[in-house]
Amino acid sequence: MHADRLKTLLQQLMAGKISEDEVISLLSAHTLEQLPYATIDHHRELRQGFPEVILCEGKTPAQVAGISERITKRSGVLLATRATARHYAAVRRKVRKALYNPLARTITANEPRKPTPGRGTVLVVTAGTSDIPVAEEALVTARVMGNPVDHIYDAGVAGIHRILSQSEKLRRASVIIVVAGMEGALASVVGGLVRVPVIAVPTSVGYGASFKGISALLGMLNSCAAGVTVVNIDNGFGAGFAASRINGEHGTGNG
Amino acid sequence: MHADRLKTLLQQLMAGKISEDEVISLLSAHTLEQLPYATIDHHRELRQGFPEVILCEGKTPAQVAGISERITKRSGVLLATRATARHYAAVRRKVRKALYNPLARTITANEPRKPTPGRGTVLVVTAGTSDIPVAEEALVTARVMGNPVDHIYDAGVAGIHRILSQSEKLRRASVIIVVAGMEGALASVVGGLVRVPVIAVPTSVGYGASFKGISALLGMLNSCAAGVTVVNIDNGFGAGFAASRINGEHGTGNG
Amino acid sequence: MHADRLKTLLQQLMAGKISEDEVISLLSAHTLEQLPYATIDHHRELRQGFPEVILCEGKTPAQVAGISERITKRSGVLLATRATARHYAAVRRKVRKALYNPLARTITANEPRKPTPGRGTVLVVTAGTSDIPVAEEALVTARVMGNPVDHIYDAGVAGIHRILSQSEKLRRASVIIVVAGMEGALASVVGGLVRVPVIAVPTSVGYGASFKGISALLGMLNSCAAGVTVVNIDNGFGAGFAASRINGEHGTGNG
Amino acid sequence: MHADRLKTLLQQLMAGKISEDEVISLLSAHTLEQLPYATIDHHRELRQGFPEVILCEGKTPAQVAGISERITKRSGVLLATRATARHYAAVRRKVRKALYNPLARTITANEPRKPTPGRGTVLVVTAGTSDIPVAEEALVTARVMGNPVDHIYDAGVAGIHRILSQSEKLRRASVIIVVAGMEGALASVVGGLVRVPVIAVPTSVGYGASFKGISALLGMLNSCAAGVTVVNIDNGFGAGFAASRINGEHGTGNG
Amino acid sequence: MHADRLKTLLQQLMAGKISEDEVISLLSAHTLEQLPYATIDHHRELRQGFPEVILCEGKTPAQVAGISERITKRSGVLLATRATARHYAAVRRKVRKALYNPLARTITANEPRKPTPGRGTVLVVTAGTSDIPVAEEALVTARVMGNPVDHIYDAGVAGIHRILSQSEKLRRASVIIVVAGMEGALASVVGGLVRVPVIAVPTSVGYGASFKGISALLGMLNSCAAGVTVVNIDNGFGAGFAASRINGEHGTGNG
Amino acid sequence: MHADRLKTLLQQLMAGKISEDEVISLLSAHTLEQLPYATIDHHRELRQGFPEVILCEGKTPAQVAGISERITKRSGVLLATRATARHYAAVRRKVRKALYNPLARTITANEPRKPTPGRGTVLVVTAGTSDIPVAEEALVTARVMGNPVDHIYDAGVAGIHRILSQSEKLRRASVIIVVAGMEGALASVVGGLVRVPVIAVPTSVGYGASFKGISALLGMLNSCAAGVTVVNIDNGFGAGFAASRINGEHGTGNG
Amino acid sequence: MHADRLKTLLQQLMAGKISEDEVISLLSAHTLEQLPYATIDHHRELRQGFPEVILCEGKTPAQVAGISERITKRSGVLLATRATARHYAAVRRKVRKALYNPLARTITANEPRKPTPGRGTVLVVTAGTSDIPVAEEALVTARVMGNPVDHIYDAGVAGIHRILSQSEKLRRASVIIVVAGMEGALASVVGGLVRVPVIAVPTSVGYGASFKGISALLGMLNSCAAGVTVVNIDNGFGAGFAASRINGEHGTGNG
Amino acid sequence: MHADRLKTLLQQLMAGKISEDEVISLLSAHTLEQLPYATIDHHRELRQGFPEVILCEGKTPAQVAGISERITKRSGVLLATRATARHYAAVRRKVRKALYNPLARTITANEPRKPTPGRGTVLVVTAGTSDIPVAEEALVTARVMGNPVDHIYDAGVAGIHRILSQSEKLRRASVIIVVAGMEGALASVVGGLVRVPVIAVPTSVGYGASFKGISALLGMLNSCAAGVTVVNIDNGFGAGFAASRINGEHGTGNG
Repeated sequence: MHADRLKTLLQQLMAGKISEDEVISLLSAHTLEQLPYATIDHHRELRQGFPEVILCEGKTPAQVAGISERITKRSGVLLATRATARHYAAVRRKVRKALYNPLARTITANEPRKPTPGRGTVLVVTAGTSDIPVAEEALVTARVMGNPVDHIYDAGVAGIHRILSQSEKLRRASVIIVVAGMEGALASVVGGLVRVPVIAVPTSVGYGASFKGISALLGMLNSCAAGVTVVNIDNGFGAGFAASRINGEHGTGNG
Repeated sequence: MHADRLKTLLQQLMAGKISEDEVISLLSAHTLEQLPYATIDHHRELRQGFPEVILCEGKTPAQVAGISERITKRSGVLLATRATARHYAAVRRKVRKALYNPLARTITANEPRKPTPGRGTVLVVTAGTSDIPVAEEALVTARVMGNPVDHIYDAGVAGIHRILSQSEKLRRASVIIVVAGMEGALASVVGGLVRVPVIAVPTSVGYGASFKGISALLGMLNSCAAGVTVVNIDNGFGAGFAASRINGEHGTGNG
Repeated sequence: MHADRLKTLLQQLMAGKISEDEVISLLSAHTLEQLPYATIDHHRELRQGFPEVILCEGKTPAQVAGISERITKRSGVLLATRATARHYAAVRRKVRKALYNPLARTITANEPRKPTPGRGTVLVVTAGTSDIPVAEEALVTARVMGNPVDHIYDAGVAGIHRILSQSEKLRRASVIIVVAGMEGALASVVGGLVRVPVIAVPTSVGYGASFKGISALLGMLNSCAAGVTVVNIDNGFGAGFAASRINGEHGTGNG
Repeated sequence: MHADRLKTLLQQLMAGKISEDEVISLLSAHTLEQLPYATIDHHRELRQGFPEVILCEGKTPAQVAGISERITKRSGVLLATRATARHYAAVRRKVRKALYNPLARTITANEPRKPTPGRGTVLVVTAGTSDIPVAEEALVTARVMGNPVDHIYDAGVAGIHRILSQSEKLRRASVIIVVAGMEGALASVVGGLVRVPVIAVPTSVGYGASFKGISALLGMLNSCAAGVTVVNIDNGFGAGFAASRINGEHGTGNG
Repeated sequence: MHADRLKTLLQQLMAGKISEDEVISLLSAHTLEQLPYATIDHHRELRQGFPEVILCEGKTPAQVAGISERITKRSGVLLATRATARHYAAVRRKVRKALYNPLARTITANEPRKPTPGRGTVLVVTAGTSDIPVAEEALVTARVMGNPVDHIYDAGVAGIHRILSQSEKLRRASVIIVVAGMEGALASVVGGLVRVPVIAVPTSVGYGASFKGISALLGMLNSCAAGVTVVNIDNGFGAGFAASRINGEHGTGNG
Repeated sequence: MHADRLKTLLQQLMAGKISEDEVISLLSAHTLEQLPYATIDHHRELRQGFPEVILCEGKTPAQVAGISERITKRSGVLLATRATARHYAAVRRKVRKALYNPLARTITANEPRKPTPGRGTVLVVTAGTSDIPVAEEALVTARVMGNPVDHIYDAGVAGIHRILSQSEKLRRASVIIVVAGMEGALASVVGGLVRVPVIAVPTSVGYGASFKGISALLGMLNSCAAGVTVVNIDNGFGAGFAASRINGEHGTGNG
Repeated sequence: MHADRLKTLLQQLMAGKISEDEVISLLSAHTLEQLPYATIDHHRELRQGFPEVILCEGKTPAQVAGISERITKRSGVLLATRATARHYAAVRRKVRKALYNPLARTITANEPRKPTPGRGTVLVVTAGTSDIPVAEEALVTARVMGNPVDHIYDAGVAGIHRILSQSEKLRRASVIIVVAGMEGALASVVGGLVRVPVIAVPTSVGYGASFKGISALLGMLNSCAAGVTVVNIDNGFGAGFAASRINGEHGTGNG
Repeated sequence: MHADRLKTLLQQLMAGKISEDEVISLLSAHTLEQLPYATIDHHRELRQGFPEVILCEGKTPAQVAGISERITKRSGVLLATRATARHYAAVRRKVRKALYNPLARTITANEPRKPTPGRGTVLVVTAGTSDIPVAEEALVTARVMGNPVDHIYDAGVAGIHRILSQSEKLRRASVIIVVAGMEGALASVVGGLVRVPVIAVPTSVGYGASFKGISALLGMLNSCAAGVTVVNIDNGFGAGFAASRINGEHGTGNG
């Protein structure tokens, strides 16, 4: 908001011509961009350190492309999740350099070349092979947001030696994301082995009474290992995002 | 059924005076004892190797005492579960030698002095201290039914070394009962370590989204370790009973 | 692990150059084989008497084929469950002798020619015709693991004489697997007729309030017949595996 | 409604002074009695063959007494269910001859001395001893409504011979009410043995995953025996009432 | 069972050569016909007044056709529910006169030409147009079993006059089946208007929090109108079958 | 109903030839139109101010077309919801001027040219882009019923400034509909900002533990902002209809 | 906020010494009153037309008294819901004129003597006697907020004439609140009879599968009568509050 | 483990006298202390930076006291949660300096005098007054573990200005814990305002469809604000513990 406009506004306020609420509303609004189907919050990058991320599910390819175009124009980095090939095709017509990762189902653009200096590694661990797509979503998210990443795949507790043998990687991580379906027990075991934050991602892998991830979700929420926090079923993005917040903001507060 | 009665019955059948169904009904009935509030199945001991067990919950002390009296008269061994002190007081008036275990909440009488020869050990493992009452119910059940028993308590996966350090006991067992609340992950870990049958008992220990044992139950049903079977929440008795069946019947069939 | 490597390792431990935890990690790891998408636990055959079994659901045909190849190279017997024809096609290119059972949806290789001597029969019973695919998965699993198998199909309790008339087969079994959908009542009836272990498998057969197997699952968990244990909905494999553990390990412990 | 009032009313209708809806409303209202806390429907006896029944749960003793007084004044028979001793004490002050059955938790008055001629027997069967209170509520309800009643208690399917041995009683009944908790399997077995209507009442008996009767309810709704209908958990009254409707109305329609 | 065989059997029993249980088993078995995938209970017609009904869901066309052939050979009447056109095609090759009703999804053969004399009308009422397919299943079932049938369609409570205007049909019925989705309130209203038995069928019609019929099911189980019993969601067959039992067996017991 | 017919009817009533109930039934019936598959309630427009609205889900195109034809003949305005293109094609053959809105999935005809004078604005707000189709259903419904409408799209609480900046639109509305999936928090925030009625519509947008709208539904039911009422998941129509009732009936009662 | 303070603030903003966000924060805060355990929002009365209402559940008597004191000092009217006698005793020590309604469980003070002129009647209807406490909470809330109120109690659909006979009261109301437990069908019936807004309140009345109000809640959410909106189980306050918003704000917007 | 014992052990391993697994087991075990009812993991402090924390729920006072004694002997700091006054009385007899916080329900001893240098502030925010006890548990946990703490209480979204006015405190925090019941919307709003990690704690505050915290839990899991992670219902301890891990371990890995 230009200083002139602000000045006028405040004079009106003090003259009683507009209310305090209207000032709030006007101050808030000037970083929003209005499309017919979306209200893009360009202020988010300032407030949260990363621009809006697009959840493609439930949006048409045209809508995703439209929002992508605006975000890449105003901010540097684009991340769209749950993207189908059709979403990607539409985005590419607007954002030529956009890349598609079909395993993680992400569209990205302007990813930073290197991790932000000084950050520790975000380690993504899965219980099984089927959990890998969700793990990849977490991994891409963390990487796009400037974090060094590493992974251990298929180390579920039915063969406990598989995770015990990876103590080196566990020790080096500064945040660990555990991705598991079925009973989700791996989160508790990892949570008990390390001292860094552990984010658990239940997956919809399993059948019968796994209830599309509810069993794993409940297992993780009830983890007997303290310090494990949980995100939504299959929400690799959320885990990667939270890991990046944890990784990047230590000691310095929110400023 | 006396031979005379049987003879008459069959003559009536062949003469068409009674139907085949009625023969079945009469043959079936003669080992049942009818109380006003219970139909005691004395045939069960022959059929299943152990007399009826009384679930005290939902029964009055007088009813439990009445059934106990009949069972101890006809069979040797009495086992009543979920018994309160009031149930026990009533039983003792009818069955002088009955014993009460307040931790396991069991009433027993005529327990065998020694395990049945040739049986392996039933090992009961708990994840935490709070799971011990359910574990004790399982332990008493298995012991009353003639099995050597042993236990490992408070060996949950948040400190994975606690169970790994017990490989000796795990190796010696012929059936293992894992009792755990919260996320129930211990069942998967034990299931992956041993080659003997593992019976998982979810407990109602935990809070919030443990949902009085549902989380542990779902975790155990979805165990990534094959060969783990599950009984109802807090059902120590069922686990002990199943363990005894597994332990005692091998190789010789159901005859 | 070669003795030389082990020697070095232990010298380092005693010299304080590496920690005890690192020794554990290194000792654990040397029987694991790492693929990009899987950590194969070749130690499992030693520990549990049977190599890893592959759950095909959620894995690509290429992944299943890759793991199958490794398992058949290192161990004798291959079992993959929930396999589609496409999974099978991929496996066959790597493991020529692999066989596909479309009803049970299993891929097998190197199945033993005869049951392991001395084992009793694993009997699989279904309540209805629609439960047969799950029953077949259980049956194949038990057979591949070296057990003699038999079955009774379509003997649900709406016509109670159907199961009562099979007392001969019930008597001969050393473990019984009951597969039922809808209300799952057959498990309770069979559990009350026999003295051997009974494993109940709820199936997703039914409609409306059967809730894809939840009703049968709850019915079985609440069975009024003691000694019935339960596996996950439609988990024929788990039941067959548990039956084999029960059948094979009696009296001799876990050694 | 007196003829004069009716006449006036209809003249007004035809004169267009009141609407058709108002006529309906006025015709409907004249058999209702208004208390401050209840609208007693005295028309119900005509319409349905039995006066209003009072569910005491959630009503104060004073309210139950007040409604009881009105019902006994206008109709013959009083039935109040889920009554506590305090409800009964209040009712007795208004209705001297009222009787209390503490097991069934019912208050009754003016019960017919004999069953209505020509009706068959309503048979109430329970799976266990703990189901008896609910069964008694059903039994009292059916009896108060003029039906001959009989019962079989504690005949659950874990000892299938217990119900098979009762073929005589099953054969004589014209409607059967099956009361069972836990997995509720008895309803399916009885449903498969008889040709008369079977009403299943799930009870809240059981623990853990019985979920206060939900498991039994689901089991009964999914019964593999056709022709079984279900009422709410612990709803002995509803079952007795439905049984009486079935028993009393055959062949003659609703007139 | 021929008399000779029976004689021999009984002599063996009295001579102690076979047990009572074996007699039961043999007596029970001789009316069962064994196919590889089904155990057909031909005794059912005697026991329950109607031969086995085939639930096509979960069965292959070949299986349905095989069972249909056996049933029509031994008994008169065929009823198969949840049948697809493919099921019908297979059945028709074995049972030439079989008929298909695509709305009700039923296959029938040898339906009686007229209702059984003396029976009242089974009236099927729906709340909406979308409930008609389930209603038709109920209607066909009742008709095939020998009952006169009638219907009222689309009379839900949002326009209460629609059901109130049908008092004539309601009065003539001897059993009423109410088919409703959404909140299922029609069952309560009809249950309060009539004195004959009311069977409620919840349907999976609705969206959002209708949860595929659970809302209607719960509404019906909690009906404030006494005497309403409930069958499974979308279970038109069960309702028609129960209505026929109610309609046909009055006063004469189960003999 | 013609006066003559009414006269005759009432004379019969007073002569005791027909009962009061029959009068009610006849008075109620004469505004109903009976199709084979529907009972159209033409009285509804008088009673409720708007003719029947057709929910197309579960109805065939032919049924929807048939009902549409009758409604447009008798009343002015047609509204059909959850309509597919195939429903529309069938309707158009009967009602030439019918219009289809594919985003809202509505068919309309005879929509009023202008809002009813004196009504305030119905404002529809969504949390995200994916909620727009449900919002459009609400918007079309309110507009067809004669209300001025406006909208704010994609103003979810993750960027709280997006809704705060719209205080002008919020202030101008006389009823606000908040459409949100995921956690549904927007309803609470809006409910706390305004003084007009707020209707919350949970949508099935989200994944994992959003459970197809249940999370949003529960969030809205538990809103900490008083005065928020809720409709079924994805029920844009219901919200629009309720908003119109609120908007149109103030001060003047139901007459 | 005094003009001076505001002036200073804005100068700082324009000088870049504080950010826009800080201005928002400071402008927002000055109508909040901070207690150690509560942040009282005195701005609410301006924004929403009524001061904060206190939910006593989960608060200590001292906390409720403390908040009550502040609210009565700053605003006129006090309303506290879910209050126990102990809450009331504590409040009375601080607010002498506070009144307690034990049936509605409300504490009030400074209730307006007469309804706000020009408002229509809020009519509260219950299905049964047990629903009255929740209805009273709604009634008190609406009355305290300045609305004329009326009620119809015990008019559930099992006797449909009870509600039909009240057409006069229904016609006079400008908003109707329907309070019902069990299946909640009354909301649909009332919703179909009137043209004014209907707010449905499910109650926890019922047993078994009523699930403490869930059945009624689901029934109401799935109401086949359009225009019914729903509040939380037992939330009489919410319904009364929403009714008042509907009643009071028509036509004039949110200003 | 003494070097001698270790030497012997390894010689045995290399001589093939003991297996690798036995070495693992022995190495693991030597930091465990075995009580009859607990296996105390003294290694945890080394592994995770904090000794075992005692969950008192489900443990007897004697058990809690026994474990407390051992922990305070071996480690410095004691934290016991969900403690009753009776637990505290027992602990105090063994650990004289133990302190009890009845609001947070914690027992502590040897709490560090000052926060660990260099750590940012853990800020605990609640939506309402009733959420304070859970918030206090989180606060005590974080403080005992060496973190500076601060709080904002009663800042729910129904008055959005309450949280917006606290931007200063929000900005200063390095981790934020949001504690909320009902719909839990505050977590989303805070998550959208800040850039530091946000941990959401659902509470069991609310009634009706809040389902003892499930609504809040689901709301938080489905938060539209990225980067919010969730712990179990009412699990203040878990949130405090996770916050401390996040706060303390940044950048330096797990070593």
